Amino acid sequence: MNPKLDLVLERVVDVPPELVWKAWTTPEYLKKWFTPAPWKTVECELDLRPGGMFRTVMESPDGKKFPAGGGFRETVQKWSTGWTEALEPGYRPSSRKIDAETPFFFTAVITMEPHGSGTKYTATAMHGTEDGRTKHEEMGFHQGWGAALDQLVALAKTM
Amino acid sequence: MNPKLDLVLERVVDVPPELVWKAWTTPEYLKKWFTPAPWKTVECELDLRPGGMFRTVMESPDGKKFPAGGGFRETVQKWSTGWTEALEPGYRPSSRKIDAETPFFFTAVITMEPHGSGTKYTATAMHGTEDGRTKHEEMGFHQGWGAALDQLVALAKTM
Repeated sequence: MNPKLDLVLERVVDVPPELVWKAWTTPEYLKKWFTPAPWKTVECELDLRPGGMFRTVMESPDGKKFPAGGGFRETVQKWSTGWTEALEPGYRPSSRKIDAETPFFFTAVITMEPHGSGTKYTATAMHGTEDGRTKHEEMGFHQGWGAALDQLVALAKTM
Repeated sequence: MNPKLDLVLERVVDVPPELVWKAWTTPEYLKKWFTPAPWKTVECELDLRPGGMFRTVMESPDGKKFPAGGGFRETVQKWSTGWTEALEPGYRPSSRKIDAETPFFFTAVITMEPHGSGTKYTATAMHGTEDGRTKHEEMGFHQGWGAALDQLVALAKTM
């Protein structure tokens, strides 16, 4: 963790890591929690193999669609996954450039550790520059990723 | 392989894959062949673990230094390796942007297959855009990577 370049959401939640993992790795579940309402995730393609696809399409309340995602990094160990926007599936560099429309790329690392009967959940977003980290924070990283986690937990409790 | 986005150097060389691999993965050897003379590779740091460092510093004939490299992708199987300029070690997105000074990022995949008593050597450079591929080709991809391979083979014969 580099505090100048990374953003971290760390929280203990009261559902076990098996269910957090299931909500994270099953496209039909992921679509239900990944974007804070009233935004929706309307498409999700997810392949946990190294270099595999992670692609989502988010939809704003007024119906505009935003494709997102990048090549999956890998499932580094049990209950740990990650992906990077800097690569497309198969490790190809992204076709996008850093510009006004795409102010930064991030690499995400998500880990789930057993914590009593619940889970210590850590989501780290790594950026290439301090400017990227600042812009992501200003866009509401903590509120957004926190609200999505609330949705994930509510969903996991119904599983 | 995507012919619109990739550049490929494929050649059968008369040294066995064990030696090609050794020349590729030992920094002291790599520095002797990696840049076509009169350019030199004056530094090399290389860690084949997933996300590990691959860093070189090249020096032009007039003494100007050019750092290069990026996070290693992984050693996918025996005699196969690769890295991407789009990531720094540890999977962090590159701090560089695509601009006039850095016109493209590439991801390289190098494979060595036994071929008689020699090796079928394939180096693929994958780009995010057709423009990146074209610029890399115009910079002399085939001549440069081919001349480096000649140097590698000459070195491997002395091992």
